[in-house]
Amino acid sequence: MSTVIKNGTIVTADLTYKADVLIEGGQIIAIGAGLSGETVLDATGCYVMPGGIDPHTHLEMPFMGTYSADDFESGTRAALAGGTTMVIDFALPAPGEGLLDALKVWDNKAARAHCDYSFHMAVTWWGEQVFDEMQKVVARGITSFKHFMAYKGSLMVNDDEMFASFKRCAELGAVPMVHAENGDIVAEMSTKLLAEGNTGPEGHAYSRPSQVEGEATNRAIMIADMAGVPLYVVHTSCEEAHEAIRRAKMNGKRVWGEPLIQHLTLDESEYFSEDWDHAARRVMSPPFRNKKHQDSLWAGLASGTLSCVATDHCAFTTEQKRYGLGDFTKIPNGTGGLEDRLPMLWSEGVTTGRLTMNEFVAVTSTNIAKIMGMYPKKGAVLVGADADLIIWDPQARKTISAKSHQSASDYNVFEGKVVTGLPRYTLSRGLVAFAEGKVTAPEGHGEFVARTPMGAENRALSSWKALTAPRPVVRAGIPASGV
Amino acid sequence: MSTVIKNGTIVTADLTYKADVLIEGGQIIAIGAGLSGETVLDATGCYVMPGGIDPHTHLEMPFMGTYSADDFESGTRAALAGGTTMVIDFALPAPGEGLLDALKVWDNKAARAHCDYSFHMAVTWWGEQVFDEMQKVVARGITSFKHFMAYKGSLMVNDDEMFASFKRCAELGAVPMVHAENGDIVAEMSTKLLAEGNTGPEGHAYSRPSQVEGEATNRAIMIADMAGVPLYVVHTSCEEAHEAIRRAKMNGKRVWGEPLIQHLTLDESEYFSEDWDHAARRVMSPPFRNKKHQDSLWAGLASGTLSCVATDHCAFTTEQKRYGLGDFTKIPNGTGGLEDRLPMLWSEGVTTGRLTMNEFVAVTSTNIAKIMGMYPKKGAVLVGADADLIIWDPQARKTISAKSHQSASDYNVFEGKVVTGLPRYTLSRGLVAFAEGKVTAPEGHGEFVARTPMGAENRALSSWKALTAPRPVVRAGIPASGV
Amino acid sequence: MSTVIKNGTIVTADLTYKADVLIEGGQIIAIGAGLSGETVLDATGCYVMPGGIDPHTHLEMPFMGTYSADDFESGTRAALAGGTTMVIDFALPAPGEGLLDALKVWDNKAARAHCDYSFHMAVTWWGEQVFDEMQKVVARGITSFKHFMAYKGSLMVNDDEMFASFKRCAELGAVPMVHAENGDIVAEMSTKLLAEGNTGPEGHAYSRPSQVEGEATNRAIMIADMAGVPLYVVHTSCEEAHEAIRRAKMNGKRVWGEPLIQHLTLDESEYFSEDWDHAARRVMSPPFRNKKHQDSLWAGLASGTLSCVATDHCAFTTEQKRYGLGDFTKIPNGTGGLEDRLPMLWSEGVTTGRLTMNEFVAVTSTNIAKIMGMYPKKGAVLVGADADLIIWDPQARKTISAKSHQSASDYNVFEGKVVTGLPRYTLSRGLVAFAEGKVTAPEGHGEFVARTPMGAENRALSSWKALTAPRPVVRAGIPASGV
Amino acid sequence: MSTVIKNGTIVTADLTYKADVLIEGGQIIAIGAGLSGETVLDATGCYVMPGGIDPHTHLEMPFMGTYSADDFESGTRAALAGGTTMVIDFALPAPGEGLLDALKVWDNKAARAHCDYSFHMAVTWWGEQVFDEMQKVVARGITSFKHFMAYKGSLMVNDDEMFASFKRCAELGAVPMVHAENGDIVAEMSTKLLAEGNTGPEGHAYSRPSQVEGEATNRAIMIADMAGVPLYVVHTSCEEAHEAIRRAKMNGKRVWGEPLIQHLTLDESEYFSEDWDHAARRVMSPPFRNKKHQDSLWAGLASGTLSCVATDHCAFTTEQKRYGLGDFTKIPNGTGGLEDRLPMLWSEGVTTGRLTMNEFVAVTSTNIAKIMGMYPKKGAVLVGADADLIIWDPQARKTISAKSHQSASDYNVFEGKVVTGLPRYTLSRGLVAFAEGKVTAPEGHGEFVARTPMGAENRALSSWKALTAPRPVVRAGIPASGV
Ligand SMILES: [Zn+2]
Ligand SMILES: [Zn+2]
Ligand SMILES: [Zn+2]
Ligand SMILES: [Zn+2]
Ligand SMILES: [Zn+2]
Ligand SMILES: [Zn+2]
Ligand SMILES: [Zn+2]
Ligand SMILES: [Zn+2]
Repeated sequence: MSTVIKNGTIVTADLTYKADVLIEGGQIIAIGAGLSGETVLDATGCYVMPGGIDPHTHLEMPFMGTYSADDFESGTRAALAGGTTMVIDFALPAPGEGLLDALKVWDNKAARAHCDYSFHMAVTWWGEQVFDEMQKVVARGITSFKHFMAYKGSLMVNDDEMFASFKRCAELGAVPMVHAENGDIVAEMSTKLLAEGNTGPEGHAYSRPSQVEGEATNRAIMIADMAGVPLYVVHTSCEEAHEAIRRAKMNGKRVWGEPLIQHLTLDESEYFSEDWDHAARRVMSPPFRNKKHQDSLWAGLASGTLSCVATDHCAFTTEQKRYGLGDFTKIPNGTGGLEDRLPMLWSEGVTTGRLTMNEFVAVTSTNIAKIMGMYPKKGAVLVGADADLIIWDPQARKTISAKSHQSASDYNVFEGKVVTGLPRYTLSRGLVAFAEGKVTAPEGHGEFVARTPMGAENRALSSWKALTAPRPVVRAGIPASGV
Repeated sequence: MSTVIKNGTIVTADLTYKADVLIEGGQIIAIGAGLSGETVLDATGCYVMPGGIDPHTHLEMPFMGTYSADDFESGTRAALAGGTTMVIDFALPAPGEGLLDALKVWDNKAARAHCDYSFHMAVTWWGEQVFDEMQKVVARGITSFKHFMAYKGSLMVNDDEMFASFKRCAELGAVPMVHAENGDIVAEMSTKLLAEGNTGPEGHAYSRPSQVEGEATNRAIMIADMAGVPLYVVHTSCEEAHEAIRRAKMNGKRVWGEPLIQHLTLDESEYFSEDWDHAARRVMSPPFRNKKHQDSLWAGLASGTLSCVATDHCAFTTEQKRYGLGDFTKIPNGTGGLEDRLPMLWSEGVTTGRLTMNEFVAVTSTNIAKIMGMYPKKGAVLVGADADLIIWDPQARKTISAKSHQSASDYNVFEGKVVTGLPRYTLSRGLVAFAEGKVTAPEGHGEFVARTPMGAENRALSSWKALTAPRPVVRAGIPASGV
Repeated sequence: MSTVIKNGTIVTADLTYKADVLIEGGQIIAIGAGLSGETVLDATGCYVMPGGIDPHTHLEMPFMGTYSADDFESGTRAALAGGTTMVIDFALPAPGEGLLDALKVWDNKAARAHCDYSFHMAVTWWGEQVFDEMQKVVARGITSFKHFMAYKGSLMVNDDEMFASFKRCAELGAVPMVHAENGDIVAEMSTKLLAEGNTGPEGHAYSRPSQVEGEATNRAIMIADMAGVPLYVVHTSCEEAHEAIRRAKMNGKRVWGEPLIQHLTLDESEYFSEDWDHAARRVMSPPFRNKKHQDSLWAGLASGTLSCVATDHCAFTTEQKRYGLGDFTKIPNGTGGLEDRLPMLWSEGVTTGRLTMNEFVAVTSTNIAKIMGMYPKKGAVLVGADADLIIWDPQARKTISAKSHQSASDYNVFEGKVVTGLPRYTLSRGLVAFAEGKVTAPEGHGEFVARTPMGAENRALSSWKALTAPRPVVRAGIPASGV
Repeated sequence: MSTVIKNGTIVTADLTYKADVLIEGGQIIAIGAGLSGETVLDATGCYVMPGGIDPHTHLEMPFMGTYSADDFESGTRAALAGGTTMVIDFALPAPGEGLLDALKVWDNKAARAHCDYSFHMAVTWWGEQVFDEMQKVVARGITSFKHFMAYKGSLMVNDDEMFASFKRCAELGAVPMVHAENGDIVAEMSTKLLAEGNTGPEGHAYSRPSQVEGEATNRAIMIADMAGVPLYVVHTSCEEAHEAIRRAKMNGKRVWGEPLIQHLTLDESEYFSEDWDHAARRVMSPPFRNKKHQDSLWAGLASGTLSCVATDHCAFTTEQKRYGLGDFTKIPNGTGGLEDRLPMLWSEGVTTGRLTMNEFVAVTSTNIAKIMGMYPKKGAVLVGADADLIIWDPQARKTISAKSHQSASDYNVFEGKVVTGLPRYTLSRGLVAFAEGKVTAPEGHGEFVARTPMGAENRALSSWKALTAPRPVVRAGIPASGV
């Protein structure tokens, strides 16, 4: 059974042109003029783009004594409704737990997904078992390893553990990732703030200002450089972290930064709301920043010093947020965004002229597919690629609201934002997964996407590091002489 | 008549994969496994890449009382021998001369080209005629305008002229370009150096140190920003200029930088040779720099803060260089490089791991085609694209020498460099234009390539500038009041 | 007749200690415990500091078809009332006018001064006469030369003129100064804005945004470096200019930056007032900036990358400002500040903790005296120094208002600001020049202060430039050889 | 008994002038023309400057299983011979040892000193005892606390310990100091290098490249900022660390950097000597760097982004260095320099024009005295100051050699350097302590110098932090409402 997308304009990371797209067997089989197929999707006035890939979600994640509110069912439903056709979620072993054991748990959770997915594996502790299993994890097609520099006492790893894991990534051709905030300082600041009576949600923001993130980003970059491996920094939210990334690139290092749609479009004033719920619902790490930081992130996306836009989707209900009444450190960290990432970015980025349409595709899909070792299966409008596509109507408008969103959460941090630019159809491997405002892909339609290690940047960096490696000085008769 | 390239690995700016390429009518008509055609080119062990595009040449250019030694015949012959399938040369109106008149002269010169070509138009003076003709030039498919901030008294334009021309570019959707060196200071320094007895070729380098280039780059960026137009900076040779570009990008500005292969691989020590000829043959503007600057340029290419690699090919013979005996200001400025750009960049960039193969393609071809408004006709391995292709043998080696090069010049600034990585075949619109060490495309095979204005960056920037334009404060009863 | 200041705490640029100060013959003759003299000034609870020096005033300046409203009489009266005991005003030759002729005019104007003064000499055109007279001007004790990069068509000089003048400064051991804004671009932007209907005072700010200042600052620094001379940048108002200065210092260059008290404490929102008068009264060049720029300036003062705080005092009456009704380019540029500089800086800098008291003294007095070649005669609390002193009451409060200020202007840009920290007494060469809220120094009390060229930075830089000067390569038999 | 220094030119951090200096009771009692005293020291042709203060020495330090070769006797003898009249040494409690106990040990060692001295106290572990004793240490006049971010397993403290200690410093008005290298990474890299056969002294340099220092510097700055206290970074050796300091200052932070004379004048090529002894003798942490880093340090001293020049004098004999034959991690870390600091800095800094004479005094003496809370008792040529003075002969020359130096070490890292500029006399509290090439101050002449906490920068920063401290949002009825 074939499907054809007619009368649209294809927009990819590097091209904009009119053509029809013919799909069969879940893949694109032809691109050109005058194509025909059994099912016809009309893209008049629309852009046909690679479906969004969200490289950073936490679905049904056990965290801070509860579970994030969206699981793979509601989470991927939200994704499709917003034009995102794939998510990469984080498999999180408990300290001491094996990586493969954790993976089984995540395999199970993900079975309900409406769209395709992959996993990053978290390294939350270090030992021979972790070292060994990393190879098996890569063999399973999971080629990226996350490290938490914050959440002291639970997920956090130390510098020597990071160095060991990063070296292992270098050997395996994998990409290390970091949540970059100095966990020691966050913990100390939190204690101090609570003691001083700063117990409200704004205390969360006070406890982890931008310099705490900048510091950790800078540190992770140094460690990756010493280990000889590229680095992916998740949720880059501030100028300090971005500056560290720019400085690294300027020294020939390979580092990617990932701003979140929240940090691009929402700011710290939200925490100063007199409504505790309003503020608590926005509690996430890193916290929202101010306009100076936002400008920095936008410029980074346009100039290529930042590479991807994600959501860190980790929704909690108001009830869950209220666990932290009287103590901000107990407010579950996280916000949603899966359904809103693309419309928000288009509205605030493309229609304003901060980004070109091609850059929009690059940062929401293509760059992510490349960095994560699954391009052009994903992230491309090419013959042979998976037909994960969106038919994007740049004139469509709506007001974002919890009343109408897919997420299981009872509020939405973008509530009230009017967006221009929405998917008319979303296709997942050729299946019309979203149409006429409804998600039509069945639960369980999603499949695991195995990824390939040893990307071009890993290989290039390894060559350079080998070429410039420390070499012993040849000395005869040591010690040779006096003064 | 069809041609098929078999058994190769296609390398583009974003992909590496095994496939055959089928060519007919000068274009790629199929990419895939098991293709067949009338002529078969074996690419076993080779990479099939878009042919190089040199965005910066000066063929048969009248300059400093003579003509550059390579014309479109020998220059494009050299290009093909080195894997470059297109050049963009600069049409230079004399002060007071009309743009269209200059264009006719360049049309005539280019008739002898072995490979395709386009032109940039230089704005060497300002007036209503220039303003008017710019539109006609753009209509002819010439969408980039060069401005010289140096060469005081001949080509140089002032800040107000640049601003006027840049604004005109903004209206026309064209890209302004600058040769960025402070011409006033270079002129003053030259006079001073000659007076102090610094008459040798090294005086050329002394007269235009990196800060002089950095300053002008910074100035041009500001002017482009005020005019609301992207900017292309030619021959970015130093950290100061690169820093200005990075800083601009960090503020959301749209600027591209273009290092030359010479600046990436040769350094200022050449000017201190005791052999006057050796030094004089390397005289070009900007002059070669030191390792610090080279490291900066390489990092820029890897990180995307610099976009293209060019040659500024402007060869002169030893005899011509000797015009400047006793007075460095009379040494014709320029060096060759058309044949050597790709092999040198591959050898010093890709084999070392400083660049990936994909980045190599991007900076030598694809980025240039995109910025210059002719992608994917040029710079792509896509069905429908011109079959300007190279079959690149990464194991092939040679020693660069004037004895065997194509250029009309009697020396080569890369003399003695051993390169690894050479074209086995070069195709120009499907024609085998270079094979078995010989250029086989006939003189006059080359065609003019018309380019498209209003690129995505121009449009995005215009939107942003419109959105943020100065708006008058509404006041009733002016002046309104006291204190 | 001797005067003693009792019971105070002396605060200098590098010390804070309790001591009395004994004055005779206009100079400090003793510092220590238990001093006595004929006149006793009680400094209980006060700081005894060097009187402020304002390095940047325009008194009775002919400008834009009128004269600035404060002359040396009212201007220096305002100075003393605010704790400033010396001003350096700009002697401005008309284009073509000799420097010495201009000096005579300024000598005459200054005869009415209540406090000491010196002059900077402006280089508003270039020629042999200017070259020659610069030496005579230095011999007269005027060791700093001002260059306008803006005010095209009147005061502006070009890059080659600046270079010539800067080289001359290097020879004479003088300090070149620049008003750094790109005059070409300001002129073009002004025309464009007026044409677009931006005729109000806010148009003035639109016409000269911070990048225009940053560019010119960067350019002047390069030119000074090429000429081998330190550089003093007046009214550094923005991060871009400050960044250029920092970058220069980081490359070993000798550059000083001078923020104005206006830019430190007032912001661009003033121009958006619906009251035309309010906005027009704030029109000055550079215009007020936003908080980001203010933070940059404050950090520069604390860290030493910026050196002095001035006023650019150039008052105009409301009537004069109204010359520009309907055309912002005709609003006379300038604001007052002489009386308010010290109280405003103390209130917003010292009481907040942004600056130490010692830094306050450094940037308002001592650094200026050093850079300008008159330390420790001025700017010091040392035996032998001129007794230009303030007895500063850190608890005294007032509300700034045009109703009570000394200036001839009918408004005050700091109107309504409550300041904490005011002079109890101001002494000019030992004379009580301000006491109990009244200026007591007679008109004409002020004397010209001759300054010394060849400061330590000039000498050090000349040594370094001589050491690293370009040297010709020694070659035998030129050209020596082939290939 | 009085001493007078006649016919000299006084050079201080901010002045250069001719005057005699009269000394009695160990202090300066008069400065002026025509002074007379019982002992006359002729300073014809010389500069009279504050004696050097070395803020960073390790005399008789237990380290890596041995003791540094110079104790307070030979170390301070070397100091005086080189014009240094005071040292600040580090009291190092063993982990678990009380601060006051350690102090007793250092008191005993220092009893043999020829010149005055003070101590910094190291915080090598954390606990209530340390917290409590810090106050007593400050009360004893020791107002600076050192933290090692390297030497994992012995001296190193973690981020949370640093934060706790820095907060304590903020309360006490003390200055925290850091040895900034990432100890985790150094340890891991050392293991890796040894395993790869990099066992020679060059392995030491490989194990702690500049980015390791830059990272730790950046981290310490963030922690100090969060704790609200200024920071002193010892032995800043590289551009990365200097960049972190500059960036911090640009954000209004209070940070001082201290390059060593070794890093300013010696480079990494020393480690590549074929002579094992030569290389091992230069092993110190941080290791020597290359010219790029040196240029950065010199520019920092001239521009004020770096504040002091020290030695980290920690001499070991060749025999001791040979402990590390076959394993660079066992080579005792440290080099000498006490006798050579001033002559080397004068020769390479002042005579070249990189620094003015006043800057020389500032970075070797006055700045140190100010930052360390003992100005103007030390570091000044003022009436009432201690007569710690040098009569500096700018024409005197010698060749540095272990054969003639004072240190107990059998070699000198500056061996063979020809210096211009040497002390003719060195005075310690009025006593001629060095004359005619001989140290004349008796063993035990040196006295402990108690220092004052709560410097101006500490107070200013505390005010600013209080003003901008996090404040809770006032909320009624929490949680307030929905959506
Ligand atoms: Zn995270
Ligand atoms: Zn996350
Ligand atoms: Zn050029
Ligand atoms: Zn050119
Ligand atoms: Zn001005
Ligand atoms: Zn002015
Ligand atoms: Zn140390
Ligand atoms: Zn040390």
